[in-house]
Amino acid sequence: MKKLSLVTTFLLMGISCFAQTTKLPTPDMKRQTISVMETYKQRKSVREYSAKALSEQDLSDLLWAAQGQNREDGHLTSPTAMNRQEIRLYVFTEKSVSLYDPQANTLTQVASGDHRGIMASGQDFVKNAPVVLLMVADMDKFRSNNQHAQWMVAVDTGIVCENINLFCSAAGLCTVPRGTMDSKAISTLLGLNDNQIPLINNPVGYPSK
Amino acid sequence: MKKLSLVTTFLLMGISCFAQTTKLPTPDMKRQTISVMETYKQRKSVREYSAKALSEQDLSDLLWAAQGQNREDGHLTSPTAMNRQEIRLYVFTEKSVSLYDPQANTLTQVASGDHRGIMASGQDFVKNAPVVLLMVADMDKFRSNNQHAQWMVAVDTGIVCENINLFCSAAGLCTVPRGTMDSKAISTLLGLNDNQIPLINNPVGYPSK
Repeated sequence: MKKLSLVTTFLLMGISCFAQTTKLPTPDMKRQTISVMETYKQRKSVREYSAKALSEQDLSDLLWAAQGQNREDGHLTSPTAMNRQEIRLYVFTEKSVSLYDPQANTLTQVASGDHRGIMASGQDFVKNAPVVLLMVADMDKFRSNNQHAQWMVAVDTGIVCENINLFCSAAGLCTVPRGTMDSKAISTLLGLNDNQIPLINNPVGYPSK
Repeated sequence: MKKLSLVTTFLLMGISCFAQTTKLPTPDMKRQTISVMETYKQRKSVREYSAKALSEQDLSDLLWAAQGQNREDGHLTSPTAMNRQEIRLYVFTEKSVSLYDPQANTLTQVASGDHRGIMASGQDFVKNAPVVLLMVADMDKFRSNNQHAQWMVAVDTGIVCENINLFCSAAGLCTVPRGTMDSKAISTLLGLNDNQIPLINNPVGYPSK
C-alpha cells in the first residue's frame, strides 16, 4: 500500500512538473472599449462567430474580466460567497483545454486536442467558436452541499458568466451563455468529482462578418 | 364559496387598480462613468453607505443596468435561459417595497413601510442602505423545477446581480451581493409561492465618506 501511494505521489509530481503552463499577457488596463452604458445597451446573445483565433491579448483581457485578480490581496473581479473563489474557468480551443489561474495570470493545459464537441452537445455553432469558456462550480471549496450552497455556487457562476457577456459586448466580441453541454464527458475529460459541476459555458469569437 | 371568491376577485382588482405605479426617468445613455476596464478593476464589495437617498436618475440607471430592456423586441441587459425573464427585481427603501417592470420602465409599490430589516437578517449595515435590491427567481415562469432548472435560475440571478455590482463600480455607488435574508418573512410580505425563491440581495448606496 505504501509502495503504491509512493508511486502515485511520483506520478502526480510528474504530471504537475510536465503540465504546460503559459503566462498570459498582462491585462490591458488602458484598452479602448465602448462606454459602460453602451456596453449594457449592446449586450446580446450571438451564435455566429468568425473562425479566427482570439489574440493572446484579447484572451487575457477576457479571462481577467471574467474572474481575474483585481486587487493585490487576491480578490477577483467576480465576487463569490464568503470569497470561496469556487468557480473554475476552463478554456477550450481547437488545440487543447486549459485551466485559468487568476492569481498567477496563467493557463495550464489539462488536455490536448479539440474537445469543443462535448461543449456543443449537438449545437454545431459552438464547434466553430475559437474559444469556449467553461465554468465549473467546485462545491468542495464551498465546504457544504446543501440547497443554499447549491443556489450560491450557481449564483457565483452567473456572476462570472455576466462578466464574460459584458466584456464581449464592450470589446466587440460575440458570445452566448449556454447551459447545454455533455456534462458526463466533460467530467471524465477533466477528472472532476461529483462535487465539481460544469454549469455554464460561453463560446466566444469575433463577429462572423 | 362562490361569494367568497367574488369578494376575493374584487379585492384583488382593487389592489391592482390602486397599486401605485411610478414611471422612472429614462435611463441616461450618455451617463459619464469610468471606463469598462476600470469598472472591472474597481469592482469590490462595500458594506458601508451614506444614508442619502438615491436620486431618481441613479435608481433608474441602476435598475436598467441590472435587467432593463435594451432592445425594442423586449430583450434585457441580462440574458436568461430561453429568454424566460424569470428574475423579479424588488426595490426596498425606507418608505416602501416596489417591483421593477423592465419593459414599462416603472416601479409598482407592493408594500408600504420600511422592510429593510427582513433583508438585513441581523447584519445591521443593510438597514442603513438607502436601497436594497432583491432578486427573486420565479420558477413558475421556467415551467420546470428539476435540478437543471434550479441551477439555471440561480445562474440567471447571478447575471442580474453582477450587472448591479458592475454598474455600482462604474457609477461610484457601493454594493455587496448577499445570500443572507429572512426568506420566510419576505415570502409572506411579497405573497410569493414555493416556486418564487428570494435568492440574492444587493444593498446599494453612495459612499459613506
